Amino acid sequence: LDKMEKYENYFSTTLLDRKSEKRTNLTWLSIKQKHPDTVYILFSDLSPLVTLTGQQPEVKLCRLNYIDIQDYLTNDNVILVFLGVELGIKKELINKMIGEDPNKEEEDGLVAWFALAIDTITAREFKQRYEDCYFLHPPMPALLQLKEKEAGVVAQARSVLAWHSRYKFCPTCGSATKIEECGYKRVCLKEDCPSLQGVHNTSYPRVDPVVIMQVLHPDGNKCLLGRQKRFPPGMFTCLAGFIEPGETIEDAVRREVEEESGIKVGSVQYISCQPWPMPSSLMIGCLAVAMSTEIKVDKNEIDDARWFTKEQVMDVLTKGNQQLFFVPPSRAIAHQLIKHWIGMNSNL
Amino acid sequence: LDKMEKYENYFSTTLLDRKSEKRTNLTWLSIKQKHPDTVYILFSDLSPLVTLTGQQPEVKLCRLNYIDIQDYLTNDNVILVFLGVELGIKKELINKMIGEDPNKEEEDGLVAWFALAIDTITAREFKQRYEDCYFLHPPMPALLQLKEKEAGVVAQARSVLAWHSRYKFCPTCGSATKIEECGYKRVCLKEDCPSLQGVHNTSYPRVDPVVIMQVLHPDGNKCLLGRQKRFPPGMFTCLAGFIEPGETIEDAVRREVEEESGIKVGSVQYISCQPWPMPSSLMIGCLAVAMSTEIKVDKNEIDDARWFTKEQVMDVLTKGNQQLFFVPPSRAIAHQLIKHWIGMNSNL
Ligand SMILES: Nc1ncnc2c1ncn2[C@@H]1O[C@H](COP(=O)(O)O)[C@@H](O)[C@H]1O
Ligand SMILES: Nc1ncnc2c1ncn2[C@@H]1O[C@H](COP(=O)(O)O)[C@@H](O)[C@H]1O
Repeated sequence: LDKMEKYENYFSTTLLDRKSEKRTNLTWLSIKQKHPDTVYILFSDLSPLVTLTGQQPEVKLCRLNYIDIQDYLTNDNVILVFLGVELGIKKELINKMIGEDPNKEEEDGLVAWFALAIDTITAREFKQRYEDCYFLHPPMPALLQLKEKEAGVVAQARSVLAWHSRYKFCPTCGSATKIEECGYKRVCLKEDCPSLQGVHNTSYPRVDPVVIMQVLHPDGNKCLLGRQKRFPPGMFTCLAGFIEPGETIEDAVRREVEEESGIKVGSVQYISCQPWPMPSSLMIGCLAVAMSTEIKVDKNEIDDARWFTKEQVMDVLTKGNQQLFFVPPSRAIAHQLIKHWIGMNSNL
Repeated sequence: LDKMEKYENYFSTTLLDRKSEKRTNLTWLSIKQKHPDTVYILFSDLSPLVTLTGQQPEVKLCRLNYIDIQDYLTNDNVILVFLGVELGIKKELINKMIGEDPNKEEEDGLVAWFALAIDTITAREFKQRYEDCYFLHPPMPALLQLKEKEAGVVAQARSVLAWHSRYKFCPTCGSATKIEECGYKRVCLKEDCPSLQGVHNTSYPRVDPVVIMQVLHPDGNKCLLGRQKRFPPGMFTCLAGFIEPGETIEDAVRREVEEESGIKVGSVQYISCQPWPMPSSLMIGCLAVAMSTEIKVDKNEIDDARWFTKEQVMDVLTKGNQQLFFVPPSRAIAHQLIKHWIGMNSNL
């Protein structure tokens, strides 16, 4: 048990095991919904309810219980999404189980998490009762303040909820749909709709894969960073763009870099990825090596792109010298990609 | 010029540069549509028109010209998708350009490709005129016979066309939509639809990221392969599954392997990817190292999963001994992942 817990905590980038097989187990779900150990996280307008805790105040998700939200569960316009169960079984629960009737299904020792989306009026009313809590709004860049594992849970919940807010109708026939699998499926209500025959992606939440790349100068000592018009002044970051249908990750990197900056890219190496719930992207982070050096910025796509030397980037990252430019905060994958490059080449 | 052509052909996994900026250039598009060098590939019921050529007959896309399809272009229910221009500018065209008026926009030397989807009746009529051609039907596994670069073009075209056939209505409000950007965008026709404010993924084709993984036994000498009920008898392949919202590639690999086989996975390494136009997936291929060995097959998800020794896999791949089992053909990414492992560990 201890070994498995360590394993799960070491490798996972989230707090939860999704336990997708439970999404169709209505008995288990309804027991868990009312269980006192169950955790609810609340959303209004796609923003999570958080609180500031600790001496050096840190933003954390408000973990609510059934009694806090039970009045809302019966509302017609709330959306409930089953997120999973906590990784690592709680020992107290196991002990309790041994003392009690082991056949009681509600006492399986698993702590379930749900996301609940409520409307604006209910949200206002709720905040009056819980003064220390507030909805993170606008979500960006505020979401980047959450610790990695809570951010993973919010990415899951926010992406699914954003899908419900934008995909209320069947794209195949235009009819209304209903929610199934505790938030993971929408089924067309028109009896003879072709989407009801076979399995189709129209019923499942979208995940939009995006490439984001740290492009190295052929000399290895500079990297290409760009900025969009809507960025705060002075901010530069890695180039990025949506992967198109029929494209590989590597081809998408080459196409996007050439479209935005005119730079030709040769080899591409995958580094790491990050879910980005704005509304439902998967940022696939790569290192790319340029084969040309002359920048031609496409002004329709971006505002500026430049080569920055390793020294300039190190000044920003390690000395906090942001006179020339600055980069996104450390919990953004762009920051990690830039840091990865510095670490790789660093002579320090 | 020569250097650039070599560069593009070396790195690209498709025949085309998508030239996405041309999708909104209606003048350029209409000149190219009628240009005699322009290539059209035809689809009926999401299957491409192909022909068999060469002494050792090989399946190839039929590359049609404007005169072959001009009658259909005015049909209301055909769908036209601009795919891009051929990589590597044709020298004859450049020479022609130099001889002619260089300001004539139609003579930019670029060979444009379009995909055209026609209805079943038109398709039947077409086949009577072109006896050597046929529509690849059913598309799988027949599509795997195409060479890599043609497969890339078909992946692009088929994914976009499948999106048009399933996403005719606005998911946000249920109204009808119209096609823009020569096949890459669908815009809601209801004037006050919220999808018309800001940029939303509802207007763009879907790409569904999928993880597919070669799972190694902790001893390094066996790998885990499974089979679904709908596979032909004896076929085993890598486990795979859709990436869920809010999930990293690595977490998706661990979740899917555990769900389907009960095996716990530790480290995960990205190897390569392949677009899979059934209808619009991106298969992200990984190598994963197991941390447990006892298989518990989830019969709802798969039919069987087993450890196969390196010798058993080599027998199948190199000696064609398919008595025990067989794996997908060489153009499937699963085959490549399995081969990559053999190569990596091979003592031959
Ligand atoms: N985008 C998607 N398209 C189709 N199936 C999906 C999607 N996302 C999740 N699924 C689930 O994956 C199952 C099909 O997986 P597979 O057997 O690998 O084709 C479906 O029954 C759904 O439960
Ligand atoms: N799934 C998608 N969601 C939003 N925008 C998309 C998508 N696919 C392609 N695009 C294009 O990407 C542009 C937005 O990219 P960005 O500026 O990176 O947010 C849009 O204007 C679209 O042209």
